[in-house]
Amino acid sequence: MREAEVIERLRRIATHPAARGLADDAALLDGLVITHDSIAEGIHFLPSDPPASVGWKLVAVNLSDLAAKGAEPAAALLSLTLAGDSDWDSGFIDGIDAACESYGLALIGGDTIAIAAGAPRVLGMTAIGRAGPNTPARGGARAGDRLWLAGTLGDSAAGLAILQADPKATGVLVDIYRRPVPLLAAGRALAPDASAMMDVSDGLLLDASRLAIASKCSATIDLDALPLSRAFIAERGGGIEARLFAATGGDDYALLCAFPPDFDPALRLSLRSGPTLVCVGTLAAGDAPLNLVGGGGRPVPLPEHLGHEHRGIATSPMADRP
Amino acid sequence: MREAEVIERLRRIATHPAARGLADDAALLDGLVITHDSIAEGIHFLPSDPPASVGWKLVAVNLSDLAAKGAEPAAALLSLTLAGDSDWDSGFIDGIDAACESYGLALIGGDTIAIAAGAPRVLGMTAIGRAGPNTPARGGARAGDRLWLAGTLGDSAAGLAILQADPKATGVLVDIYRRPVPLLAAGRALAPDASAMMDVSDGLLLDASRLAIASKCSATIDLDALPLSRAFIAERGGGIEARLFAATGGDDYALLCAFPPDFDPALRLSLRSGPTLVCVGTLAAGDAPLNLVGGGGRPVPLPEHLGHEHRGIATSPMADRP
Repeated sequence: MREAEVIERLRRIATHPAARGLADDAALLDGLVITHDSIAEGIHFLPSDPPASVGWKLVAVNLSDLAAKGAEPAAALLSLTLAGDSDWDSGFIDGIDAACESYGLALIGGDTIAIAAGAPRVLGMTAIGRAGPNTPARGGARAGDRLWLAGTLGDSAAGLAILQADPKATGVLVDIYRRPVPLLAAGRALAPDASAMMDVSDGLLLDASRLAIASKCSATIDLDALPLSRAFIAERGGGIEARLFAATGGDDYALLCAFPPDFDPALRLSLRSGPTLVCVGTLAAGDAPLNLVGGGGRPVPLPEHLGHEHRGIATSPMADRP
Repeated sequence: MREAEVIERLRRIATHPAARGLADDAALLDGLVITHDSIAEGIHFLPSDPPASVGWKLVAVNLSDLAAKGAEPAAALLSLTLAGDSDWDSGFIDGIDAACESYGLALIGGDTIAIAAGAPRVLGMTAIGRAGPNTPARGGARAGDRLWLAGTLGDSAAGLAILQADPKATGVLVDIYRRPVPLLAAGRALAPDASAMMDVSDGLLLDASRLAIASKCSATIDLDALPLSRAFIAERGGGIEARLFAATGGDDYALLCAFPPDFDPALRLSLRSGPTLVCVGTLAAGDAPLNLVGGGGRPVPLPEHLGHEHRGIATSPMADRP
């Protein structure tokens, strides 16, 4: 049985409506939005990453799933493996504590297990939020809807690239890689009117194609429209190469949402604070999940890799990351 | 920071009432009983265990926590690591599927992540149940209460010992080791009147001392009263050695509950089916968490190990196993 078959089998078991076919970011049960994400050492974080940033990210990836469903964080259960390095564990809990405190998430349970010293850590969190008036799925968009993106793309991937070249590097992009911010307020503001919504985590192109497939539509993304931060442009420029990097790098915490063509979701976000919100594409009828345009609306060939497929398929079939 | 300090720090973070001080088997939030247990290869199961039995047990350990709180199983999220052995994964999902089907548990989400081939698997489940009219904590017992046990002790530990001597062995005790049965119906029947309740998983003596400490009482357990199955007695006899083995072996799925002295909980269980239910001891005021008697009420010295401390402290501070 290949990995894709594992996932297909789990989907066949998961017939309850709350499961949403295991194709959404989170389950919806009794008014609670529930998600579980795990991260493994060597796959989702590096042994050299500061442990506090690993703890923070474990909370943030789960909260980003709640944000994408417009839910209010309520509580979390932590699955912690102890691999015999108490300094690491202490730093990790610092990060968990800081993120729970920042976002009003109550730690209410979980499990800690000892594993062999040196074995790769696997860290998991179940996050529970209270649903808002609408919990948008991935598959609710319609042909004609426009695709909007809250937040910027590529910062974290650029920060990781900087660290890979120089493990002691610092700066805005490194900070974003280490301490990503889930867009909870934006998610709650956008969810009531969104026809579909998900968090962008494995790369915009991969995640947009997932939303399109779930909604039985064809997405067209305009690379010119991608929201890039000043720090990102200062590091990598704003050309087509940089835009493709930002659209495929993954580890973003942006929200991708679909709205009817006559609806302006910017009305829902305060102009004075909150993330940028821009229209990055459209949905139409059609079989091709994804089309790209750029350079003033000209077709752009799809890159070979749309995003973090190794996370998209192998690691996150049930609740894509973050 | 030592492991005990890790746990103490997590407890200090977990101040929300739903957390129950991380000292109970499960959290209680919005009428839902929520638990998370993880199992690690080489610690909680052997690489040679049939993968279907590992899947079954992961569900059973979580359901046993729900049983101990008198909750009705509703839904679960699965955290699955794929270590590059698809036959193993397939068997594991067979076991998950069989247990979910058997106990009416809906798989509604989770995460699958790829880990390095050969790395020890860490498998987790968050189980969610609907609370009954009472959700007994560990700490609610009072001096004078009697301690009752639903289910038998030692069968699984005896089955494991048989398998350690002969990996191809079969029989009732091996079956119980591989396919434990969480006592959900008994839990629901007993919870409404119980002053305290928990599942016995790390050994009766260790778990009874935990209940006594949480309830600020002193427990006395009568070894003569321990419920032993016919299969267990056929394998190991019914003498003091066998009884101490059964009381400390762990991996049981029995329920330990406290009731006022004039209450007979047997009235709550059908006589025609369901597990055995016997009074195994009493609670009194006092500082010693645990006293043992046997051989007709004579004091018995406490054994050096009260149970699976390595699971009790290192692996299950937040939600003891199963």
